[in-house]
Amino acid sequence: MIAQWRELAEKLFNDVALLTRDHHEGITRESYGPGENDTIAYLTDFALSHGLDVRSDRAGNVIFKRKNDNGQAALWYGSHLDSVPQGGNYDGLAGVVAGLLCLFRLDQEHAETTHPIRVIGLRGEESAWYGKSYIGSRALLGGLTDQDLCLTNRSSKRTLAQAMEAVGADLEAIRRQEWIIDRSQFAGYLEIHIEQAESLERMGQAMGVVPGIRGNFRHNQVRCLGEDGHSGAVAREDRHDAVFAVSELVARIDALWSQYIAAERDLVVTVGTLGTNTAHHAVSRIPGEVSFSLEMRSLHLETLDAFYAATLAEAIAIEQSRQVRFEFDTRIDTAPAAMHGPWTDVFVRQAREQGCKGVLTPSGAGHDAAVFANAGIPSAMIFIRNQHGSHNPHEAMVLDDFLAATDVLYRSTLELTP
Amino acid sequence: MIAQWRELAEKLFNDVALLTRDHHEGITRESYGPGENDTIAYLTDFALSHGLDVRSDRAGNVIFKRKNDNGQAALWYGSHLDSVPQGGNYDGLAGVVAGLLCLFRLDQEHAETTHPIRVIGLRGEESAWYGKSYIGSRALLGGLTDQDLCLTNRSSKRTLAQAMEAVGADLEAIRRQEWIIDRSQFAGYLEIHIEQAESLERMGQAMGVVPGIRGNFRHNQVRCLGEDGHSGAVAREDRHDAVFAVSELVARIDALWSQYIAAERDLVVTVGTLGTNTAHHAVSRIPGEVSFSLEMRSLHLETLDAFYAATLAEAIAIEQSRQVRFEFDTRIDTAPAAMHGPWTDVFVRQAREQGCKGVLTPSGAGHDAAVFANAGIPSAMIFIRNQHGSHNPHEAMVLDDFLAATDVLYRSTLELTP
Repeated sequence: MIAQWRELAEKLFNDVALLTRDHHEGITRESYGPGENDTIAYLTDFALSHGLDVRSDRAGNVIFKRKNDNGQAALWYGSHLDSVPQGGNYDGLAGVVAGLLCLFRLDQEHAETTHPIRVIGLRGEESAWYGKSYIGSRALLGGLTDQDLCLTNRSSKRTLAQAMEAVGADLEAIRRQEWIIDRSQFAGYLEIHIEQAESLERMGQAMGVVPGIRGNFRHNQVRCLGEDGHSGAVAREDRHDAVFAVSELVARIDALWSQYIAAERDLVVTVGTLGTNTAHHAVSRIPGEVSFSLEMRSLHLETLDAFYAATLAEAIAIEQSRQVRFEFDTRIDTAPAAMHGPWTDVFVRQAREQGCKGVLTPSGAGHDAAVFANAGIPSAMIFIRNQHGSHNPHEAMVLDDFLAATDVLYRSTLELTP
Repeated sequence: MIAQWRELAEKLFNDVALLTRDHHEGITRESYGPGENDTIAYLTDFALSHGLDVRSDRAGNVIFKRKNDNGQAALWYGSHLDSVPQGGNYDGLAGVVAGLLCLFRLDQEHAETTHPIRVIGLRGEESAWYGKSYIGSRALLGGLTDQDLCLTNRSSKRTLAQAMEAVGADLEAIRRQEWIIDRSQFAGYLEIHIEQAESLERMGQAMGVVPGIRGNFRHNQVRCLGEDGHSGAVAREDRHDAVFAVSELVARIDALWSQYIAAERDLVVTVGTLGTNTAHHAVSRIPGEVSFSLEMRSLHLETLDAFYAATLAEAIAIEQSRQVRFEFDTRIDTAPAAMHGPWTDVFVRQAREQGCKGVLTPSGAGHDAAVFANAGIPSAMIFIRNQHGSHNPHEAMVLDDFLAATDVLYRSTLELTP
């Protein structure tokens, strides 16, 4: 691609990075919060000054259109504009920038397409803020519940409803769980995203095509309740120690997981947050309470079901042997999603024509594309190589890789909707 | 004992409980802080109005004397006036109240003793506040180091030096690690304390006599450092998950501990605080950092040495297998202590003469008496039955048990220093 696209991309990435730099480290763009708002405001100005139309949908997502958009069913490019706290700059943003570049290029080449092409910058994809992922795309497609709207922000304790209202979202429509934009408007959804793992880096490939996206079962909080006591004075057999109980549960989960991997079942398990109760823990006190999160991901729903059942059985066994109690909060499920096969094939072929191998890279992480796909909209994804993994400040992307993937997206689009 | 002592004891316990009630639950008397200060101020007024002399030592501890104290080597009654956050009312306070009751009774009976009898209300016994136990008695007997004085309060982040200075302690003298009161002043140390376990409750005994006190090895903070990463995108074999690593370590410690118990070695182990780094943990992020405390207690130094070495070996094995790193802060050691045999015998005999079995109850928890004993001062202890264990708001003591133990202390004293 020509120098012009490189310069535009560099400018967009740099400007947004400066705007949303975290004062500790990395990038912070809070879901339905400050950094995300700033990014949307910046991209809106930029797009308007480059000849595009911009508007918000009723869930607070931002939509970019060409001036010649005829309002018919469109092919949508999209990704998200939030980040985890102290995350990287490209996670989400890359897909929106790629889409904008394609719109500029379509304009420049005076391309007419069967379906109009639009770009959607989605809000609230990261679960780090409200314990719920894909908020923007779920709200758009009628999948956000009243219960979700009551979730509270990890730091401000503001509810999701309050945060969404603050950016002008139409809570009534969202509560009705209707599609915010009519179903007939969606001819398909295409997403570019940096890979969150390093498999492309290891394969030496600039990009990969995604055949499917892992789903997950998630508990934001499991509490283990034992009994506080003096650390020196209570004999081993009289203790109801929540730390030993949770450690045993995690060790058993680890052993189970290792069996699943040995049986070649797709699965990852994470206890991302863990802690004794800071209000009354002490070095010399037997801990009576530990809270932790639990997340399992797989490409296959039956694997999630089986592993979850096995985990519960272990927890019950530990409750009995250690006289503690586990309290699980409501489980949040995200279904695995298959990408649209014929389009995936087009991506692979276009990637090959541009000199890549067109490798397939199943997505371990969830993506908005899973919400679109599971809502019945044909969806496809391209991953860009990432040198340092995702959800950390060292996430990395080479601009050449980004431009190559954007070029494949552009060429594929012209093939899908000539 | 007569109704008068019961009334006095009831009043003292109730008044101090009202004064130091925690707004959440239980009792909070911060080491070298508010609740402890209030208790000392209250007891000082009370003692002065009941005919005793009161003064502070240069470590901030409070000393109660009879008016006829001749300044010679004394037999000291003592215990501490602080509590853990949201702890119970009797832990520490009972020993000081018992001592005061004995002084009042000596006055009332116009008793003349070979050695004068004094009561010391010690500060800062609980490690919950500064990560260090027996601060008041260590400071008194020259055992507090410069490093200890730099320890910070768990919530206010004030240093121990600042807190001690605020109550008028002589930091220069304490830094010189000299005895704040001349060594020749100590003919012995006697302490009544509620049992922190429930062994007396289980034996159906009102009191027990303590033959020895467990020592401990303690790390206030061990950090496990792995690597953050996206929870869905990094394969099992590429993870450096600090939660799985710490859980495995705790599970291995648990297994080792169980072997020690099977071999009848005296040992308890506690991980009282545990947590992922709240600044950058998230449900969907592989946790790269976990901090925890580690404490082991035993009556025998060689058991502590052996168990500690075994724990380190497990940590090193996990570092290798999981590619994480454990960072241990400075280990804080408290030596086990034997009580003075002949005096223990007197306690046992007096307890039997009052209709108890005079059972021996080794102390799992540490006590100031250990500091006195290890400084070469003959020391002895009586435990009072406690129905709900210690270091929790439900700690309990029956007043009859307290009065019976105080009576045994009084009678024993007259025998030890007729």
